[in-house]
Order: sequence, then structure tokens, then C-alpha cells
Amino acid sequence: MTALVLANGEPTASVSSLDRGFAFGDGVFRTLQVKAGHPLNWDRHFRRLAHDCNALGLPVPKEDVLRSEMAHVAPGDAIVKITVTRGVSGRGYSKPTETQPLRVVAAFPPPEYPRELARDGIRVRRCDLVLSEQPRLAGVKTLNRLENVLARSEWFDAAIREGLLCDAAGRLVEGTMSNVFLVIAGALHTPALTRCGVSGAQRDRIRDLALSQGIAFDVRDIPFGELREAEEVFLANSLIGIWPVVVLDNQAWKVGPLTRRLQALLAEDDAAA
Amino acid sequence: MTALVLANGEPTASVSSLDRGFAFGDGVFRTLQVKAGHPLNWDRHFRRLAHDCNALGLPVPKEDVLRSEMAHVAPGDAIVKITVTRGVSGRGYSKPTETQPLRVVAAFPPPEYPRELARDGIRVRRCDLVLSEQPRLAGVKTLNRLENVLARSEWFDAAIREGLLCDAAGRLVEGTMSNVFLVIAGALHTPALTRCGVSGAQRDRIRDLALSQGIAFDVRDIPFGELREAEEVFLANSLIGIWPVVVLDNQAWKVGPLTRRLQALLAEDDAAA
Repeated sequence: MTALVLANGEPTASVSSLDRGFAFGDGVFRTLQVKAGHPLNWDRHFRRLAHDCNALGLPVPKEDVLRSEMAHVAPGDAIVKITVTRGVSGRGYSKPTETQPLRVVAAFPPPEYPRELARDGIRVRRCDLVLSEQPRLAGVKTLNRLENVLARSEWFDAAIREGLLCDAAGRLVEGTMSNVFLVIAGALHTPALTRCGVSGAQRDRIRDLALSQGIAFDVRDIPFGELREAEEVFLANSLIGIWPVVVLDNQAWKVGPLTRRLQALLAEDDAAA
Repeated sequence: MTALVLANGEPTASVSSLDRGFAFGDGVFRTLQVKAGHPLNWDRHFRRLAHDCNALGLPVPKEDVLRSEMAHVAPGDAIVKITVTRGVSGRGYSKPTETQPLRVVAAFPPPEYPRELARDGIRVRRCDLVLSEQPRLAGVKTLNRLENVLARSEWFDAAIREGLLCDAAGRLVEGTMSNVFLVIAGALHTPALTRCGVSGAQRDRIRDLALSQGIAFDVRDIPFGELREAEEVFLANSLIGIWPVVVLDNQAWKVGPLTRRLQALLAEDDAAA
């Protein structure tokens, strides 16, 4: 809970209750890992943040400002969360004509996920919550995350590490906090996030690493039932790296060779940062 | 922009950037009118707030606490906005085990809508944005309001006072900041808000007033095209009261007798408060 926070460059963990981030979720955020002062996978994080700001018509923070603020709050190992909102306005939904956006850069302690999760794989469940479809916001990591909150509140069993989410047509979309990948006939498949879901910077990196290695990477609609055909299944985000999925209800997988290879490629890429 | 604000009873317009209202929109709000220190239509507002808190598993603020805080921030005429969030937590979507919810009660200057809008009616448009469907949150006024923000940003013509929203099946749902009502064969019809939309306390009051007068009140799915069959159309919320709709694209209506009658009933009800 103790976090070092800069709001528009000022050291404060306070924001106005009139901020549109608080009032409407009118903003976006990204979460990344910093090691020894180096933000991992930064270029893709910044591109995603810029994309998300553009999706909402928010000005994109200057990259050098973000870099310097991250260096300030996270000189060593940390999780950094960058939030951009449309700033303070009156009560109404209309965007203020003179936007004074808010930029919050906060450092949190590094996550303490047991190493066994990446090594031995995790157990997941299918969530009851069905993701709604809003193509205008699909892929964007907005501050409207109540569906994720509701989905994550469906289970209390600590042995279940993630929940999988589908849309109303029964298509697999994502995990509550991760993107999902299937290995089918040696190729990587991940759901298209054109109707709902959040597109992670780690997903972008896995795509790039796969393609650089000549591994086919297919982004498409994936009915949930296709999980049965998958040789390997894994989840990814910027904090967990890659977690193999080994149990989903009565289905089981072994941690497979492509998952292992991608974990190694990620680790190399981080080490080179 | 100047607002008198209490956060958990303390006079401050600041909230933590770690508050889940800011981070995820993990909370609800209601907006109401106060006249001479009397919150109008309070019982229905409180019931809606309680319903919405329950929908998210948030503790319902005590009614006497809210009443006393409203009296503090709004001793005269004002708009009061009540926000309840799940409070501060760490980064993750998981609900904190020990919830210390946040309650924000803020007073704003009364709205300055020209009286002609209620008298002569307004011009509206149909928004391009299509509302997503999330039955788990339908009707609830959560802090996830980006769709309303996007819809309201579709037009700049000040002569257009509201935009109408549909779901993916082309059903009429609501206005960006109001509920919508049709008069067909002398009966009132309003969209069922079971898939999306926000259920206003004013909508509840109009239902109760109509039923008390023996006016049929039908809550159901309404294809957008049914507007053509409507003898009267109006919008309502707690700040505007009732605004007759007189122009939508190439359709036009006169301000009708049932609209006038309901406006008079609302005014009487407010005066009796």
C-alpha cells in the first residue's frame, strides 16, 4: 500500500475527487516492471499508452517526462503504474474544452509471485462473468475495469491463480489480469481483442519474439472449446512474465516446449534491457 | 468547479490515487438536487444508491450520515453528488479483505438550464456509439462511465441538448445523461434497463407518479424505430426534471398533454418535499 507517487510531477498520492478519472474512469493506465532502474519492455509499454491515450482523445505524455518520473519513483526494483486522465472538470460528461490532463506515476513493491508458478504452471478457472463488447474501447486499458474486478471476485481459492473470460458468443478473450495464448500444431494463437479485452505490452512482445524466431503467430477469434485442442496454454502479462496453464476444470496440460522457449526468450530480452 | 466536498466526513476534495474508484471505477454515484436544504426525491435516490452499492458488494452508507453531510455541504440550493467506492487497496483487481470504503459528498452550484428547454422542448440526436451489454451492471450507476463520455463527445452543436443511445440490437436504451420515455396510445413506455443503461431515481418517481394517476407504465424492450409511433417523447433526470423532445433528425413532435401533466406532477412533488 505504500507507494511513491508523482501527480503531474509533484510528490503526492492525492488526486482531486473532481478528476474525471475518479468520476467516470475517463483515463487509461499501464503497469510495468522496473529492474535496477530499467523499465522492462518500455518501448512497447509507451506505444500502448500512447495508443490508449489516442483512443480516448487524451494528450500523450512526453516520453522523456515519463522516463524521468519513473527514474524518480523507481530507482531500483519496482512495479510502476502510469495513469493518464482527462483531469478535473465539472459534473457533466462533456469533455472540458481546456483539458489539463492528470498524469500519475506510482511505484509499488515488486510482486512476490512464487517462482514455482512460472516453472510448474498454474490452475485456472472459467469465470461466470461474460465480457461486454465495446469495439470503441476494445484493447484499451481504460480506468473502467469493473468487469475485471467482478470477475476476480468470483473465487477465493488461492490455488486458482487466474480466471479466463469469454464474450457473449463464448469466445475466449483473456484472463482477468493477463492475455492468453494457445499452442496448436506448433503455432501460437491468441484471441483477437477487437470487441473487448485489454491488449498487453507483453502480448506485443511475445508476438514480436515469436515472429523473430519464425514461430507462426495467429490473432483470431478463438471459441473457448478450442482450449481442448491446444497442446500448450499459457498466460502472460508484464508482471508475471509467462505462466503455463496446467489445469482448467477437468482439462490438464503439461508445460510444453514452446512455452519454455518463450519464457527463455522473455528472460533474455529482459536481461538485455 | 468550486465544490464543497466531504470525504468520509472530512472537508477535503482530495482522494488517494490508490483509491479503487480512481484505479478501476470500483464504485457508484448518484446526483440529486437540493432546494433550500431539502434533497429532492431523496427516498428514491437513497434506495437507488443502496441498490447500486449492493450490486457491487459495497457497504451502504448510513442514511442519517448522508443526510447530515448533505446538510453540511448544501444548506441552500445545490446539486449534490454522492460517490461510494471500495476505498484504497493494492494494485490488483482482488477486492481487499478489509474494505474501508470511501464516501464522497460534494455540492455543486445549481444547474443553469434555460427554462425554455422544459417549456418548448429540445432537439436530440441519435449517438453513433452503441452501448455494450453487461447484465451484471445494467441499471447501476457505476463509476465506469466512459461510454457516456464518448457518446457525449460526438456532437458540439449547443442546439442539440441530448443524444439517444441504443444497444447492438438497435433497442433504445437511454440518453447520455437521462432516461427516455415514450407516450404511445396514452400510455407511458420506457426501455427496460436489463442489459445496459442507468436507472435514474427520477425514472422511479415518474413511474410512481404515473401509476398513482392511473396512467399505464410499461417497461420493456423498445426498438429505436418505435419512436416514430410515439405521440410524445421526453427525457428525464434529477437535474433537468422533464424535457420534452421535439426534434430528432427528421422527426418532430409537439409537447404533448401527458408530458405537461407529468411535469406538473413532478413540480408538485418537489414543492411538497
